[in-house]
Amino acid sequence: MRTVLLAASLSTIAHAASAQTARPDPGPLTIARQGSFFVGGREVKSDTLSTVPAYAPSGTITVDQVYVRYQVPAGKLAVPITLVHGCCLTGKTWETTPDGRMGWDEYFVRHGHPTYVIDQAWRGRSAANPSAINAVRTGKAAPDQLPTVFSSGHEGAWAIFRFGKEYPQTMPGMRFPLAAQAEFWKQIVPDSINSLPTPNPTVPALSELAQKIGGTVLMSHSQSGIYPFQAAALSREGIAGIVAIEPGACPEPTADMTPYVGLPILVLWGDYVDEFPRWAPRLKNCRAFIDAANAAGAKAEMLVLPEVGIKGNTHMLMQDDNSLDIADILIEWIGKHVAGGE
Amino acid sequence: MRTVLLAASLSTIAHAASAQTARPDPGPLTIARQGSFFVGGREVKSDTLSTVPAYAPSGTITVDQVYVRYQVPAGKLAVPITLVHGCCLTGKTWETTPDGRMGWDEYFVRHGHPTYVIDQAWRGRSAANPSAINAVRTGKAAPDQLPTVFSSGHEGAWAIFRFGKEYPQTMPGMRFPLAAQAEFWKQIVPDSINSLPTPNPTVPALSELAQKIGGTVLMSHSQSGIYPFQAAALSREGIAGIVAIEPGACPEPTADMTPYVGLPILVLWGDYVDEFPRWAPRLKNCRAFIDAANAAGAKAEMLVLPEVGIKGNTHMLMQDDNSLDIADILIEWIGKHVAGGE
Repeated sequence: MRTVLLAASLSTIAHAASAQTARPDPGPLTIARQGSFFVGGREVKSDTLSTVPAYAPSGTITVDQVYVRYQVPAGKLAVPITLVHGCCLTGKTWETTPDGRMGWDEYFVRHGHPTYVIDQAWRGRSAANPSAINAVRTGKAAPDQLPTVFSSGHEGAWAIFRFGKEYPQTMPGMRFPLAAQAEFWKQIVPDSINSLPTPNPTVPALSELAQKIGGTVLMSHSQSGIYPFQAAALSREGIAGIVAIEPGACPEPTADMTPYVGLPILVLWGDYVDEFPRWAPRLKNCRAFIDAANAAGAKAEMLVLPEVGIKGNTHMLMQDDNSLDIADILIEWIGKHVAGGE
Repeated sequence: MRTVLLAASLSTIAHAASAQTARPDPGPLTIARQGSFFVGGREVKSDTLSTVPAYAPSGTITVDQVYVRYQVPAGKLAVPITLVHGCCLTGKTWETTPDGRMGWDEYFVRHGHPTYVIDQAWRGRSAANPSAINAVRTGKAAPDQLPTVFSSGHEGAWAIFRFGKEYPQTMPGMRFPLAAQAEFWKQIVPDSINSLPTPNPTVPALSELAQKIGGTVLMSHSQSGIYPFQAAALSREGIAGIVAIEPGACPEPTADMTPYVGLPILVLWGDYVDEFPRWAPRLKNCRAFIDAANAAGAKAEMLVLPEVGIKGNTHMLMQDDNSLDIADILIEWIGKHVAGGE
């Protein structure tokens, strides 16, 4: 109960638990600086880069880098936030919602947080390597050497994202803006994660990014949930806190907790989790991790939104119709618990 | 000569032809609104979406959509600009340069132009379809059914981008920031264009975008050079002008010129073009197109930078060390020639 009580003390909760807050036109936003760059990356030589005459098959390419876009607001700054998307998606996750409302990327900036949005390695603007495909196409390798790459179909994603138990049924009171679902499906891209080593190259890249920023909250979603913990195990330098939005996995409770001593950690869950066999065990494992981490000196807590009266949130809660109310909760939590917060 | 004389009348040219302009800290930037969305896209059913147990092989995905990120500045607005990247790259092309200077995406916004940056269909944040790969992997299709997808190696890209005739030699006076080349190579992603129909799905998406914006200059680069012309052939609605940066192709001079009647068109080239067999014929063909278009009532011109004394520019001139000086030329040209310009 301790973790829920901690979170329930937040002043934003009572507000968020009622009907969704009307959001007036926020007016102009003044940016001190913005831009994009890469972290990580390594050079790879290949003889199967291409099968078209205009581009040579042999050469060097760079892969495993992570694309980062950032905005730093003008004025007094709060602690930077780095947004790390989940399965089958890109940094678009955090931008304008499918129904056209402001994304968390801009909302955090408007609340003083320099905000960094990444594309995981091998996805979006972070390059994949086509060599294995061309090796098979040219008969140099067998078809079973093709990369493991999948896309999530609308019907399967439906239950994974907890819009409903089966496509196209919906959970009662469900808050995802389904009228705009066609725009949401456009966000889904092929995912090569099963072709990549563990830890994912995104993990050392996040560590490099955190050190470059010089202090940031790593905010993950779903598939990327374990990454900030793995990055903290590589180095605590630059990691001011971790916010895990519905993590695919927390560290095992039996793992070495040394990397998390003194670290502010919040694990956030939406609604209906216990009704979904895919998700219920993950929440349970995260509770066990939080207990183990706190016993070792972490400052970890869990917030399950329906437990504080906020109902109807899906796995894509950063796009649900109360997304900015949830962002308010995170902003308040970060301000209270993370050094360098507001 | 007419086209060069027109361009040479621009007041920015004399300035740009001298040493690169020092750029002081531009200070904060005030944005009226920003965000991202998709245009285009179609639903596709597939039975080979996945080979991993956690994601179903059968389902519906959405492909052919084009990701768009935009910023609209506060204050008096100039005509919107849509930036369309070239081969093997993404919208990152137009953002922060490899050596950390401001990209054209922000520079145009700072000059009053609402600016839209896209990722071509099947690249970056615009989803590809992994079905053909999984069909081969599961033995349902032969390896020759794999998609045509290539990456450009550093060594081959070297001459294509005219850094030098052969890796790692450089052209005399060449202006690309090679000290930061490692960051540039990270921009290159696999390119599936040869797996896509003609016109590329990006073309109808650009037409949809132009109509949604309600008037925009379509600014292409390299591989995408033909797209704005193809979009204008679909519909002139929303297309206020075309700026083609080193187009891979202009329309054939024998083509129907009706789509270009009255349309302001600028084709821009950097240096060394005549020394590269890949590029010299393309410039020549564009000259012939411009003559034919103007004979039919277009307002087309060509600017070859060394012909007006601006030397050393590569194919990646939006990242060269005088990139903002070149942007100034484009801003002045748009202001003079495009309805809705400054």
